[in-house]
Amino acid sequence: MIYFDNSATTKPYKEVLETYSKVSEVYFGNPSSLHTLGKEAEMLLDQGRDQIAKLLKVNKKEIIFTSGGTEGNNLAIKGTALEHRNRGKHLITTNVEHASNFEAFGQLEQFGYEVTYLNVNEDGEISFDELKNALRDDTILVSMIHVNNELGSIQPIKDVGKLLSAYPKVYFHVDHVQGMTKVPLSFKDCHIDLCTISGHKFHGPKGTGALYVRQGVKLFSLFTGGVQENNLRAGTENIPGCVAMAKALRLSMEKYVENKSHLNDLRERLINALAEMDGVVINSPKNGAPHIVNFSLPGIKPEVVIQALGEHQIYVSTKSACSSKLAEPSRILMVTGLGVERAESAIRSSFSFENTIEEVDEFVATLQIIYSQLKEVMR
Amino acid sequence: MIYFDNSATTKPYKEVLETYSKVSEVYFGNPSSLHTLGKEAEMLLDQGRDQIAKLLKVNKKEIIFTSGGTEGNNLAIKGTALEHRNRGKHLITTNVEHASNFEAFGQLEQFGYEVTYLNVNEDGEISFDELKNALRDDTILVSMIHVNNELGSIQPIKDVGKLLSAYPKVYFHVDHVQGMTKVPLSFKDCHIDLCTISGHKFHGPKGTGALYVRQGVKLFSLFTGGVQENNLRAGTENIPGCVAMAKALRLSMEKYVENKSHLNDLRERLINALAEMDGVVINSPKNGAPHIVNFSLPGIKPEVVIQALGEHQIYVSTKSACSSKLAEPSRILMVTGLGVERAESAIRSSFSFENTIEEVDEFVATLQIIYSQLKEVMR
Repeated sequence: MIYFDNSATTKPYKEVLETYSKVSEVYFGNPSSLHTLGKEAEMLLDQGRDQIAKLLKVNKKEIIFTSGGTEGNNLAIKGTALEHRNRGKHLITTNVEHASNFEAFGQLEQFGYEVTYLNVNEDGEISFDELKNALRDDTILVSMIHVNNELGSIQPIKDVGKLLSAYPKVYFHVDHVQGMTKVPLSFKDCHIDLCTISGHKFHGPKGTGALYVRQGVKLFSLFTGGVQENNLRAGTENIPGCVAMAKALRLSMEKYVENKSHLNDLRERLINALAEMDGVVINSPKNGAPHIVNFSLPGIKPEVVIQALGEHQIYVSTKSACSSKLAEPSRILMVTGLGVERAESAIRSSFSFENTIEEVDEFVATLQIIYSQLKEVMR
Repeated sequence: MIYFDNSATTKPYKEVLETYSKVSEVYFGNPSSLHTLGKEAEMLLDQGRDQIAKLLKVNKKEIIFTSGGTEGNNLAIKGTALEHRNRGKHLITTNVEHASNFEAFGQLEQFGYEVTYLNVNEDGEISFDELKNALRDDTILVSMIHVNNELGSIQPIKDVGKLLSAYPKVYFHVDHVQGMTKVPLSFKDCHIDLCTISGHKFHGPKGTGALYVRQGVKLFSLFTGGVQENNLRAGTENIPGCVAMAKALRLSMEKYVENKSHLNDLRERLINALAEMDGVVINSPKNGAPHIVNFSLPGIKPEVVIQALGEHQIYVSTKSACSSKLAEPSRILMVTGLGVERAESAIRSSFSFENTIEEVDEFVATLQIIYSQLKEVMR
C-alpha cells in the first residue's frame, strides 16, 4: 500500500495506540473526581498538556483540548465573534480557508456580522496591502489558514502577525491543522492569539485536537457545563486521546528534526517526474508546503484516476476530504485563478514522514500507465 | 479496588478497547475520502451507527455522533434555540439539570431568550401542572434530564412526551446520559425529538457520544465545515471511538437484559445497610434509578470521607463530577429542598453491572469504621 493522502488523515503511530489503550485501561478516572483515580487522571492530563505546551513553546494554560480541527476553528472564530460582539462586528478571513473556517464565517453573517474575504494570487497567497486596507475600527478578528490543505500554499503569518501587533484589539487566529509538524510556526513570534491543531493529521488519534488560546484572550464557549479546559470547553476530558495526541506530536516533531529535508525530497522527486509527463500541470506553488503536491490531468476526471490508482493500492485524493463528496470543482483552485479545467481535474498527493522515495517512484510509474490508458480511451 | 463512581465515568470494557485499537490501526482512512480506505472507514462508521440505531429502536439517520454528553446537550439546546429563534424565544427546562444543560440555558438568556426553570418536589420530580402552565405560544423547546445524575430521580418522560405531542411546535429534548443502559426509555413512545447519550457512562471510550435527532427536526449546527453527520456536526469522524461506543452500548444493554435486577439488588443492599447506621440520611428518592444511592452524613465533610475511603481503594463522589471542584453545596440537593446540611454532606455511590454484593458489604463495613472515627473526632 502507498498512502499519499496524509492531508486527509494519517495512520496513528503504533506507540500512540499503545498509550491510548494503557491510559484508557489504567487511568480511567474522571479528572474532576476528588478521589485518587480522579487525581491520577488529572495529573496525566496535565502532563499531556505540559508536553504539548513545551513542544509549541507556549504556557500549558494556553492549551485547550478539543475534539479536532473543526471544533478548534469553530470555537476560535465563533467564540471570538460572540465574546467581543459589543466591540465590533467586522471580521476578516481569506477565500482559501478550509470549510470549517469558511462556513463558520458564513453562519456569523446570518447574525449581523460583516466579513471581508481576502483574495489570493496564483500562488494562493493573500495581498498584504489588501489586508491592511481591510482593517477597520470595528474589526475584532483576522483568521487565516497557515498551510492551505489543497494546494500547500503558505500565508505570510509572521508578517501578518507583526502588522496586527499594532492593532491590539484585533485578535489573530491561525488554522495550523495542515502545517503542524511540517511547516514550523512560532506562535509567540508571530503574535498569534488563537491557533488550531488536529491530532489525526500528525499520526494521533481521531477525535483529538487543541486550540492555543493566548493568556488573556477571552472566548465565548460553545460547550458550557463545567470548568474543564480553563472554563472554555466543558465536558469530561478525553484523557487517553489527549495523552496519545501529545505523544504523536512529540514523535512527529522528532521525525521532523531528524530529517528536515525528507518531505521536500519526496515533493521534489514527484514534481520533477510529473513535469516530464505530457499534459500534466502542477497546481501547488513553488514555495509551498513540503508535503502537498497538487496537480491536474486536464480533461480527465480525478475520480477515475483515484479509482484506478486504488486498484494498485495507491491512495491519493481530489480535494479536501471534508468537501470531497461535493460535486463542484475545488473552491480553492477556482479562487486561486487556476481555471475551471484545472480545478475540475485536480489530484492531491500528500506525504508523511513514513513515506519513501521508492513509493514516489512507484506512484509515478503507475500513474504514467493509468494516464496513458485514460488518454487512449478519451481519444 | 471498589469503584462506586460509575456516574462520573466507567472503566471501558476490554473488548471495547480492542475494537478501538483494531479500527484505529486497520481502518484509519478518512470516511470522506473517495478511495477504498475511505470507503471501508465509511462502511464501518455506518455499521456502528446502524448498531446503535437498532439498539435504540430508531432510524440510523437519526443518530448524530458527538464528542460526548456535554456536546450533545449543548447542540440540542443551542441548536434548537438558534434554528427556531424566529418562531419564539421561550424555553423550558428544570432546575435539577446537569450543568451542561443548565448553563447552556444561562448563555441563551444573554441573547434575549426567556427560560422557565421548573421546580421539583422532595423526590426531585417536576410537577406536571407546572409544566402545563409554563407552555406558551412562543415556547420552542422543553428540555429535561431523564435520570438525575446526583440523586437518581426519574422524570416522568413518557407523560411529558404525551403532553407535548399535542404541541407539535415545541421540541422535546431529553438528557439520557445517566439513564442509558440502566433505566429504559423508548424514544419513539415518549415522543422525544432530541436525546443525548454519552459513551463513557456505559463502558465506552471517553470523548464519544451521540445525539438522537428525530427525522425532520432541524438544528443550527455548532460546528460547520463539512457535510458529516447529516450536515449537523462537521469534522472528521472519530470512527474508532464511534464503533467502540456502539460495542459498549451493545454489551451494556446485553448485561441489563441478562440480569435486570442486579443494580436494584446492589442498591437495596446498600440502602438497607445505610438505614441502620445512626445519623445517616438517604437523599435518593425511593423510586429512583437503580444505580445511584445518594446519602448524607450530616455534620461531616464529604471530602474527608472520600479521602478516607480512598485509602481503602474505595471510590465514591460528592456530587456531579463536572461540578465537584466547586465549593458550594450541591445545587441539585438544595433545590430539591433537602436543606443545606444534607446538601453540604452528600455522598454519591453509583454502580455499574460490574459491581457485586460483596463490594457493597465491604463498602458498608469500611464506611462504618470511618464514620465512627470521624464522629469521635468531631465530638
